[in-house]
Amino acid sequence: MMEELVGLGAVTLLGVLEQAYFSLQVIYARRKYSVSPPATTGPPEFERVFRAQANCSEYFPIFITVLWLSGVFFSQGLSSVCGLLYLYGRFNYFRGYSESAQGRLAPLYFCAQILWILIGFSAVGIFLTICRVYLNMDLLQELCSI
Amino acid sequence: MMEELVGLGAVTLLGVLEQAYFSLQVIYARRKYSVSPPATTGPPEFERVFRAQANCSEYFPIFITVLWLSGVFFSQGLSSVCGLLYLYGRFNYFRGYSESAQGRLAPLYFCAQILWILIGFSAVGIFLTICRVYLNMDLLQELCSI
Amino acid sequence: MMEELVGLGAVTLLGVLEQAYFSLQVIYARRKYSVSPPATTGPPEFERVFRAQANCSEYFPIFITVLWLSGVFFSQGLSSVCGLLYLYGRFNYFRGYSESAQGRLAPLYFCAQILWILIGFSAVGIFLTICRVYLNMDLLQELCSI
Ligand SMILES: N[C@@H](CCC(=O)N[C@@H](CS)C(=O)NCC(=O)O)C(=O)O
Ligand SMILES: N[C@@H](CCC(=O)N[C@@H](CS)C(=O)NCC(=O)O)C(=O)O
Ligand SMILES: N[C@@H](CCC(=O)N[C@@H](CS)C(=O)NCC(=O)O)C(=O)O
Repeated sequence: MMEELVGLGAVTLLGVLEQAYFSLQVIYARRKYSVSPPATTGPPEFERVFRAQANCSEYFPIFITVLWLSGVFFSQGLSSVCGLLYLYGRFNYFRGYSESAQGRLAPLYFCAQILWILIGFSAVGIFLTICRVYLNMDLLQELCSI
Repeated sequence: MMEELVGLGAVTLLGVLEQAYFSLQVIYARRKYSVSPPATTGPPEFERVFRAQANCSEYFPIFITVLWLSGVFFSQGLSSVCGLLYLYGRFNYFRGYSESAQGRLAPLYFCAQILWILIGFSAVGIFLTICRVYLNMDLLQELCSI
Repeated sequence: MMEELVGLGAVTLLGVLEQAYFSLQVIYARRKYSVSPPATTGPPEFERVFRAQANCSEYFPIFITVLWLSGVFFSQGLSSVCGLLYLYGRFNYFRGYSESAQGRLAPLYFCAQILWILIGFSAVGIFLTICRVYLNMDLLQELCSI
């Protein structure tokens, strides 16, 4: 079963690599601005990089969760495309936020929209599956045969 | 196989929506108390909302992980019920913490208890599965046939 | 299908228990150094414990993700062993960081190496699966039959 979901696996792995990249950027910023752990405050340049990675990390489990919900219960193809767009948006968020607090906003809205789409896909997929499995009602088929 | 686990999927999606709600509350609090990113400190009212969401985000991956471990290896029904209780507890935690630091305690104990129950379910389910798969010993059946 | 993956489940559960242990340590440190929520700053002893848990929590979803990617698409046995080593490394990271900022470095490098190995396993497994499922090319078999 998992073999057919390898597309989601590939997007997930890309997401992990992106998070690794963000973490490395924080480590470089710690060196550059001499902010030694356990401190998390320093010049605004450092704090923006630090918060950009913290924010991306905070949303990472949410992203992975809806990516798989939507991919398993709705459509692997559509979810994978949304997943790639989200990762692209997060990359811009990180770069934008590193440069200025303002720079994080446009990519943030973009990422939020993608998340809402994935949430919508998941909701539809889960609803249809519940109807099929528990109510023995194949809504998709009924819709098509109208 | 995933179709039968759609109950866990529904609880998971609800959890994602709850996290989205918490995030929006932080954004509103940032506006209300004028705490612009990358700052994370400000009036105690803001800091409590900020920390409430941070704490819920920190536990979200742990919750999702034990929800699925317990649902897959022990019982989907019991896990889903615990999952709903946990999400309800987290909602009270967020509301309580937003009002006062003291207000977070009762819901926190509640949530922790639910997590321990899910951890217990997972441990029992994983133990029985290991016995069955690797030791070829169906403990449940042996117990029942005594 | 999940039954065969019970080894990954066991390592995952151990990871959850470790995170629970770290959280409890922060709660004890809050009492010991009188740092009441929502504060997150205080004496360096407290801040190191606080940051050690925060850092472990940040990497927990990444760890669980690559553990399962690598276990599902590459090898459950190898992934589980790496998983145990990672959890052992994180334990040392937490203990080391609690004692001194310097003490976190050696275990951190160790954990990072394990993560890169799991990422490598996942990449190889996902690549071979894509070749098999989408390109109908069983590279492993072709390699062996040379
Ligand atoms: N959030 C981390 C991201 C990068 C990271 O993992 N850094 C390592 C090496 S400097 C670490 O041990 N950070 C200490 C910490 O997170 O408190 C940070 O702030 O440093
Ligand atoms: N932890 C976030 C939760 C809400 C959120 O995602 N906020 C967006 C829009 S204000 C953001 O970019 N936050 C910046 C940050 O987390 O540093 C916060 O503190 O703001
Ligand atoms: N990150 C947490 C880890 C431990 C925990 O979950 N603590 C509970 C009880 S003290 C809590 O509500 N913490 C408040 C917070 O995280 O802001 C902390 O800093 O306290």
